[in-house]
Formats: sequence, structure tokens, C-alpha cells
Amino acid sequence: MTRSKRIMVVAPARSLPQEAVAPVEAVARSLYGDAVSIDFHAQCFLSKGHFAGPDAARDAAFAEAANDPMTDAVWFARGGYGAGRLAPDLLDRLGPEARRKKYLGYSDTGFLLARLYAARIGRPAHGPMPADALRDGGEAAVARALKWLVEDDAGAIEGSLGPDAPRVAFNAIVLAHALNATPELDLSGHVMMLEEVGEHLYAFDRSVGAILSSRVARGLAGVRLGRVLDAPENDPKFDQTPEEILRYWCGRAGVPFLGAADIGHDAGNKVVPFG
Amino acid sequence: MTRSKRIMVVAPARSLPQEAVAPVEAVARSLYGDAVSIDFHAQCFLSKGHFAGPDAARDAAFAEAANDPMTDAVWFARGGYGAGRLAPDLLDRLGPEARRKKYLGYSDTGFLLARLYAARIGRPAHGPMPADALRDGGEAAVARALKWLVEDDAGAIEGSLGPDAPRVAFNAIVLAHALNATPELDLSGHVMMLEEVGEHLYAFDRSVGAILSSRVARGLAGVRLGRVLDAPENDPKFDQTPEEILRYWCGRAGVPFLGAADIGHDAGNKVVPFG
Repeated sequence: MTRSKRIMVVAPARSLPQEAVAPVEAVARSLYGDAVSIDFHAQCFLSKGHFAGPDAARDAAFAEAANDPMTDAVWFARGGYGAGRLAPDLLDRLGPEARRKKYLGYSDTGFLLARLYAARIGRPAHGPMPADALRDGGEAAVARALKWLVEDDAGAIEGSLGPDAPRVAFNAIVLAHALNATPELDLSGHVMMLEEVGEHLYAFDRSVGAILSSRVARGLAGVRLGRVLDAPENDPKFDQTPEEILRYWCGRAGVPFLGAADIGHDAGNKVVPFG
Repeated sequence: MTRSKRIMVVAPARSLPQEAVAPVEAVARSLYGDAVSIDFHAQCFLSKGHFAGPDAARDAAFAEAANDPMTDAVWFARGGYGAGRLAPDLLDRLGPEARRKKYLGYSDTGFLLARLYAARIGRPAHGPMPADALRDGGEAAVARALKWLVEDDAGAIEGSLGPDAPRVAFNAIVLAHALNATPELDLSGHVMMLEEVGEHLYAFDRSVGAILSSRVARGLAGVRLGRVLDAPENDPKFDQTPEEILRYWCGRAGVPFLGAADIGHDAGNKVVPFG
């Protein structure tokens, strides 16, 4: 029998609704009994304006979780906005324990995934978060996240690529902003998957254009399109679909468009381990 | 008597409503009689989805206006979205005539102002556009733009700086995206003015953070805050004002916050000549 696993949940962006805790724990118990414990850091439930507590509290909780020798994985509670405000020197506070951990989240927490991956710290991945427990069908998303966190289950992983293709996944507008603060991010040889939610199609086009006009576009192995959900009506009509937008910018950048990726702001969101 | 001046209007982003033409011409006539002619390029009135015609038509109209030896200034008709899609090699099509011209616009056309300024082509400036004629009190904005375009009138220029301080002005979310595609933009020693419209405060914070975490923040002489207008309600409340947001990110970047700038998406928008 393998040793028990411990996952710590912290909230770099918005706070986690208390009502997400019980369903997450129920899924973990049903899958792993007592062999997996999920520790919701008290910081998850802080609230300061838009954020799960002051910037310093979010920094401290993340560093504590990443450095904790008893914790196997750091799971981001929820997106929204806030991970881009974490301290510029935050990664300097991480010790060797941080390098053997998994880090899982998506949406706004892509700011932090980008930094971790650029610094080659641990195993960052784009995938479901505890807040997804509150979606319709969210138990499946939570179970998928846990199966990757606990046992590296291949069935949890986005399946459009062979096992050897390095990959990353991001929310498009988050990456367009994060690139400015993460000049050391090197994605040469990678397949990049992009998804979006709640943005007008013109804004999706603008984000994709910024990404594929940037230095990270050079050397990409390809781009895949995740789901683009809940776009407000574009006035006037945008006249291009999300796939046409991606094909257009891939063509300009000379990067292959490779088709769909099974990711997005929904319960079907698959896990994309970076690298 | 100075020779007559000719201004050509082109639309790198959205198309210009026909009803903006008469009030712009009326203001020009009342100020300058027949000494100033405003030539609305037919491309201004094209429509393709979100844009004032296909990308190639917007490219061609801009290059034609910039290269026209009979034209003194290129005036961007309207923002919206689209200037970020102009061709990567567009500036390579510009000849010596393009270098002696003024270029005036704001909002989305900041994508093009950034490229022109990075390449030190002509005299780009952030300020009112023909579409502003349709605002309440828009004649004043149009008159201000013309006074700068035609006679370099100091009264049209944003007045918070001495005449020798190099400056730029941008819409925040446009610049956050444009930086990715304009790595050669060098703003060392400049005062940067930022304004925003129609974005949630969390998104304004994200854009300001991206800009002030980027390479262009290094060496800025300071930052000034234009107007932040029509922000949709932030849920939860953002808890920081636009000025607090700018002060926060200036503090992180070690850049002086210098106070207000008299720019924004309104009829009071002053002209900010770059450099």
C-alpha cells in the first residue's frame, strides 16, 4: 500500500465559498477513504475586496503550502483575479520541498502556473479546482483533479497529444497579461492550449493576437483551441468563430493549428500537466 | 499666409458613422475656412464584421494616407478594436513622406501609435478622433484635435507636464496587449499616462499590473492617471480606487506616481503628443 497523500488548498485569487468544502471532501473520501487528506488552508476563506485576503496573506499561504514537507500537492481553490498580484519575489521564498510538488489550477491562477513553469519549479498543471465542486456535474471535475493529483491517472489528462509532446494550457486573456510579467517563460517546442470565458469575441481575438504576436509564439509546436464559453454578444457581430480566430493568428505566426483541446471553464475541463 | 493643410482620415479599427462627417467638417470650416481640408478615406465607411473593412483594406488605406505627399496628417477615425490586426510588415511599406506627418488617435488605435512611436516614424499623439463628434460636447474635442493637427496649438495639449518631458498616453488594456507585439517600444525617461473605459476595476488592475510588471516599466520617469470611466460594477466590490491601483503598482515597480492626467474617453480628452 502506498503512503497516504496530503493536498493543501490555498487561494491565490478569490476566496473559496465554504459550501465547496463538503463536496470536495466527499469525493476524496469516496475515491480514497482515509488515504488522502485535503487540507483547506484558512487563507482560502479570507476576504478582502476582490481577493481571498490581503496580497501578503495570499503570498504567505502559497509559500507555506509549497514549502510544507508533509504536503504532496498544492491545489488552487478558485480563479477570478488575484494571482497576478502575488509578490515579485514570491518564488525566491520557495525551498527544495516546493520542487517535488504538483500545482493545479486554471483561469486566473495561470499567472502563477506561468511563473512556476518558467522557473521549472515542481509540476504545474492546468485543471479543475475545488470551486468547480459548485458547478453542475462538478463532482466529476473534482474527481478528475484528484485522480491526477493522487495517482497520476492518465484518464484525467487531456488526451489530444501523445505522452511525449510538451504542453501548456492557459486562459487566453490571463496569458496575454501574464507574458508581460514573465519574460523568462520559454515555450519552444510546446503545444499551447487556450480557452476563454465571459469575454467578447473581439477581446478573445485581441488576446490571441497578443499571445501569437509575442516572443513565446516563436518555436511553438502548435496551438489547440479549448472551449470559448459565455461570450457576451459582440456588437457588431464579430464574423469569425473562435476556431477561425485561432487559425488566423496561427497563420500569421507560422504556427500549426492542431484542432480542439478538451479544456475550458466547465465540469469537463481535463488536466494538462505542463511540460 | 501659411499654405493650406490637408488631413486624411482612415479607420484602422471600427468604421466611422457617416453622421460624424458633417459636424467634423463644420468645426474645421468654422476654425479655418477653406485653408484646411479633411479627406475622409472611403475605407472609413467599409464594414466587415467588427471592422472598417477587411484587414488588407485597413492596411492599404493607412499606408496610402501615410505615404501621400499631399497629406499633412493622418487622423484615425475611431477606436473599438482592429488596429492590433494590421499587418506585421505594415511599417515597412512606409516611405519618407510618412516620417514628416502627425498621427492622431486613441483607444484601440494605441496599437498603431505604439508601433509608430517604437519605430520613431512621424509624430504620433493620443487625442480625440472624428467619432468623438458624436459625443455630447464633441465639437470641443474635434476642435482641440484640429488645433493640434493644424497649428500645434499649445492649448490643445495635456498640460500636466513641462514642454520638455517626453510622454506617451494609452488605454490601459490596449497597451497591456500591444506590449506583446511591440518589444522594441522603449519608454525610458517617459511619463506614461493611462486611461480606461468600460472595464471592471479588477481588469484595470490586471492591465496596470501587466504594464508596470513589464520591461517598459524600467526607466519610466513616472505614471499619471487619466480618467477611468464606465467601469461595470465589480462583484465583489474591488476595494481600491483607480488612483490606489496606480499607486500600488507604481510602488511595486519603483516608478513615481505623478497625479492626474487630463485624458480619457470623453469630450475633455486632451492631446498628448508622444516624445
